[in-house]
Amino acid sequence: MSFELTILGSNSALPTSNRYPTAQVLEVPGRCFLIDCGEGTQIQIRRNKISFSKIRHIFISHLHGDHFYGLIGLISTMNLMGIKSDLHIYSPSELKDLIQPQLDYIRGEMTVKPIFHPLNFKKPQQIFEDKNVEVFSFPVKHSIPTSGFLFKEKTKPANIKKDMIKAFNIPIAKIKDIKAGADFLTEDGHTISNNKLTTSPPPPKSYAFCTDTAFHPPIAEIIKGADLLYHEATFLDKMKDLAGKTLHSTTKEAAQMAKLCGAKKLLIGHYSARFKNIEDFEKEARTVFKNTEAARDGNKYTI
Amino acid sequence: MSFELTILGSNSALPTSNRYPTAQVLEVPGRCFLIDCGEGTQIQIRRNKISFSKIRHIFISHLHGDHFYGLIGLISTMNLMGIKSDLHIYSPSELKDLIQPQLDYIRGEMTVKPIFHPLNFKKPQQIFEDKNVEVFSFPVKHSIPTSGFLFKEKTKPANIKKDMIKAFNIPIAKIKDIKAGADFLTEDGHTISNNKLTTSPPPPKSYAFCTDTAFHPPIAEIIKGADLLYHEATFLDKMKDLAGKTLHSTTKEAAQMAKLCGAKKLLIGHYSARFKNIEDFEKEARTVFKNTEAARDGNKYTI
Repeated sequence: MSFELTILGSNSALPTSNRYPTAQVLEVPGRCFLIDCGEGTQIQIRRNKISFSKIRHIFISHLHGDHFYGLIGLISTMNLMGIKSDLHIYSPSELKDLIQPQLDYIRGEMTVKPIFHPLNFKKPQQIFEDKNVEVFSFPVKHSIPTSGFLFKEKTKPANIKKDMIKAFNIPIAKIKDIKAGADFLTEDGHTISNNKLTTSPPPPKSYAFCTDTAFHPPIAEIIKGADLLYHEATFLDKMKDLAGKTLHSTTKEAAQMAKLCGAKKLLIGHYSARFKNIEDFEKEARTVFKNTEAARDGNKYTI
Repeated sequence: MSFELTILGSNSALPTSNRYPTAQVLEVPGRCFLIDCGEGTQIQIRRNKISFSKIRHIFISHLHGDHFYGLIGLISTMNLMGIKSDLHIYSPSELKDLIQPQLDYIRGEMTVKPIFHPLNFKKPQQIFEDKNVEVFSFPVKHSIPTSGFLFKEKTKPANIKKDMIKAFNIPIAKIKDIKAGADFLTEDGHTISNNKLTTSPPPPKSYAFCTDTAFHPPIAEIIKGADLLYHEATFLDKMKDLAGKTLHSTTKEAAQMAKLCGAKKLLIGHYSARFKNIEDFEKEARTVFKNTEAARDGNKYTI
């Protein structure tokens, strides 16, 4: 099972002519998650050939406009398209009141049914689960309540070795238990230990999304060992004072978090509009954490 | 005096990867008017190098999302930039209630002060005036209350001929009256007729904006003789049934309106997302009204 991430927007609040505000799509088997929804997200969804009708779950990190002003346009478009489905929106509780007047104003029957799920900013929480994946929200450190998200593949049961089934004549009824870790007792009373019968499942994949946030060490434990960490790097290191004041991060702080949590790869983004050259961000972060890439609108990453 | 029009968005509601929803900037001496503000308008303002701080007057034709979902992002950005000014918004009265919750949620002091001016959908009305320009709203024919806008240069006073001032020794005190149309009485009692003393001012320029609307003959009288008419042409002629049902116009209907009102030039736009090829719109409209151009995002037109 693989996760596929598409960056729809890598910029921060002030508009630039070539980067959109924050939005990402994470595709996991059977699901298409939208993470944040800045202005223009629906245009970027179209450009990146993502199907509107697949989006059923939207995660909004916080209520600064560059992370949710595209939501009403997206819902309106899904409605114009006649998409009939529930649309689960995980967000700060205030979001509902902010966009409800506009939802009410959309004339005619709403085919899309937004269902709001308020986030908890006190502690990490599981907010979504199906047979393949769990999603957790966790508080990060910003000027208003803001949530990070962890998308985590469920641990699969061990694989049973086919030749062992034959060798020990294991009945089908026992296979489930063995996959879950049980040893096997043969007809003549021998115990075959589980590790002889099975191979370990592939380690579960995980993707962690952390923006907007200052460098915040408690995050590390929650997102430990993430295969891919997206961490904001609004500023280059030379502007770390401003990063501190605005509760954003620098390139080096993002890289520091990747190191601290043992991420396999780091993606940085949420660049301040004042910076044209994204290569500088990449270079600087790599001095601290080598496997860093600077996110660019339209880029795709397979986890 | 010239008007300069920049097309920021020429598309209708559903997103495409290369056309933005409706927004235009009309620059007249000393003023920068924004007409409609679909999602992504602030990005297009940036791309087209228009100064955010010059925008003080925004005209919203109606409350379908593709004409106003970019407004909150624009105001938020002007606020982040610290632009200190009143921002006059001429729109259906409901707009205030639709975006007020989001305006209230913008933390910190609002440097930009939105001032809402409700439009009248019963009859044409002057909604703005300064020393150079008047703006009128007028009802068009759509599925919800919708307004067209007419931007009209004020008639300038006549120009007095310099050689006549010398020839008849005209005192400065009399010049204003003569420019306004008065004859001149010489010292020896002769009346010099005004038309001998003056040349006519250039005819006042005008720009008419009509979207979204069905073909609606009563508009013609209001926008009579417009130098430039922007009229929606959501559909090609082959889809005139759908145009009729949705109260939009076809290319030929837009061209028919240009003919009826005696416009000097026609710009068409608000294309349905289903059409990729805009040349077809241009060709078809020209069979009815030759001086037609199909609007494209980023194009500029001098009136």
